[in-house]
Amino acid sequence: MRYTVALDAMGGDHGVTITVPAALSILKKNAELRLILVGRDDLLRAELARHHGSESDRLVIKHAAEVVGMDEPPAQALKKKKDSSMRVAIDLVKEGVADACVSAGNTGALMATARFVLRMLPGISRPAILKVLPTIRGHVSMLDLGANIDCPPEQLLQFGVMGSARVSAIEGKDQPKVGLLNIGEEDIKGNEVVKQAHELLKQAPLNYAGFVEGDEIYTGDADVIVCDGFVGNVALKTTEGLAKMISHYMREEFGRNILTKLAAIVALPVLNAFRRRVDPRRYNGASLVGLTATVVKSHGGADALAFEYAIDEAVKETMNQVPDRIRIKMAELEGRSQTEKESS
Amino acid sequence: MRYTVALDAMGGDHGVTITVPAALSILKKNAELRLILVGRDDLLRAELARHHGSESDRLVIKHAAEVVGMDEPPAQALKKKKDSSMRVAIDLVKEGVADACVSAGNTGALMATARFVLRMLPGISRPAILKVLPTIRGHVSMLDLGANIDCPPEQLLQFGVMGSARVSAIEGKDQPKVGLLNIGEEDIKGNEVVKQAHELLKQAPLNYAGFVEGDEIYTGDADVIVCDGFVGNVALKTTEGLAKMISHYMREEFGRNILTKLAAIVALPVLNAFRRRVDPRRYNGASLVGLTATVVKSHGGADALAFEYAIDEAVKETMNQVPDRIRIKMAELEGRSQTEKESS
Repeated sequence: MRYTVALDAMGGDHGVTITVPAALSILKKNAELRLILVGRDDLLRAELARHHGSESDRLVIKHAAEVVGMDEPPAQALKKKKDSSMRVAIDLVKEGVADACVSAGNTGALMATARFVLRMLPGISRPAILKVLPTIRGHVSMLDLGANIDCPPEQLLQFGVMGSARVSAIEGKDQPKVGLLNIGEEDIKGNEVVKQAHELLKQAPLNYAGFVEGDEIYTGDADVIVCDGFVGNVALKTTEGLAKMISHYMREEFGRNILTKLAAIVALPVLNAFRRRVDPRRYNGASLVGLTATVVKSHGGADALAFEYAIDEAVKETMNQVPDRIRIKMAELEGRSQTEKESS
Repeated sequence: MRYTVALDAMGGDHGVTITVPAALSILKKNAELRLILVGRDDLLRAELARHHGSESDRLVIKHAAEVVGMDEPPAQALKKKKDSSMRVAIDLVKEGVADACVSAGNTGALMATARFVLRMLPGISRPAILKVLPTIRGHVSMLDLGANIDCPPEQLLQFGVMGSARVSAIEGKDQPKVGLLNIGEEDIKGNEVVKQAHELLKQAPLNYAGFVEGDEIYTGDADVIVCDGFVGNVALKTTEGLAKMISHYMREEFGRNILTKLAAIVALPVLNAFRRRVDPRRYNGASLVGLTATVVKSHGGADALAFEYAIDEAVKETMNQVPDRIRIKMAELEGRSQTEKESS
């Protein structure tokens, strides 16, 4: 067993009913993994029994009496719920008992607690939400997706560094291409913040490819796309909404009459292959980058399969020492700007 | 003939080769329409002849010697190209010779020229780009899609008023539901501008439905969605990019082997029906709302069918007197805030 991941087993809309089967399933696939289920031990034991599973040296239960509510104010969760499954899972990472933690709970509370307990890496002001999305040619890492609104240019630069370090670490790409999300409609492209971030990114030790527009997220030309959390969140949610509309239209067209229903039966294997490929569950698991350790946020409504993918993101980050790689890349950036300051 | 629309026949990536056939086609379908083709008369006459068409009382050629380049700075186009097809088409509207104008040319130049020649309606600071998009239940009007970055709250309010007036006029809806695009991730939702716009919209004489997130664009719950041009442009372009990726995946899956190719043949009528439904050409034509007359921007790369849809948007706005309806709705808003000021 090489990696230990602590799971906030109570978090999300469905709590133990999805976290426990997800844990049992991924342990079968990954022999190097050890999981700690954090939450109410009576509920966890009952759920384990329901799935004919039990505690073992690879699946440990850690009792935590409280649960952070999905709509609970982050400050309150942080101050008052010191025995919540979320907090205890993060504490385990802090104490070195676990390498990483995964939660499907309240995003704001997770961010605030992780930041308070684990602290930020040097030079990073706040965590950013990073997600890997499918593209025509592979995939792209996009950040920030909602943790930071009104980001100053320096923060957009940090996003570029963090995204680049993570892609290098996990995908082994030497110089990931970093794009800055912008619009091309106006004569003077972009707003002031984006223009300043563009200058900072040009000077940074990154393979910076310049501006990208919204339609280029899915072409796969860039490995990393940087934007502020407001814009990134809108782009991500727009994607989710459009995907739903398209699948609704498909169902309507194939369900129109007896002939179209027959066509659907013939095309079923193809449609299923297609559906698997765009299945959002396969892209579940957003990384809160910039912290001293790996914290992955699962979608609150995730099912067991989706939660398993979120655990897998945490495993990938741990295996590839993403926080350390970000630390090194940030030091490189800071060292360079230090040298520039000294030489000027 | 009840409506005259002036076409910038030279604009866009393909100029007369798409504007002329589009004009000939729409004139056959709409007996009340008259078009003025503005551009180089030699080119226009040659293109008309190629399509076995000719000038008539419903299809008039108006010569303009110059063309605004797709990448030409708007200020330069405005100052130096007074005999461009774009400028002359807009001048025809100003002079009352045409009711509306359509161009596939340079967006920045079109905005600057239209604003200079036609002027803004009282109370509106700048034009906004509005587009009608498909949803699960029908369609939604979204603005701004790229004309204005960093919009103050008052401008977002204007977008709400303009969008609402346009939907009322064209769709006959009495109280269109207006939503304000926001994100739901952070504990304190949205940025300062969005929060202030939220307060203004609540007090306005609109059916304001509050915040909507990116995934709600396509549900059809709102009739109008308001956002700043940066966010709106990213959302629109993200949609275009995702749609391309999905159709790429579909082609790949159906083209995988002999069996999937056979399935594609069986499913072809359904796939075609689906494709027609999401065909972006059917949604071509963005309205520059807030001007004293109708100006519609076609996508630069539009083909003849897409350009026809853009002309149709201009016809709908003209038929339903959208600029007047916006003027009335703005007066209502201003009157109300005037009364509030007096009574306070």
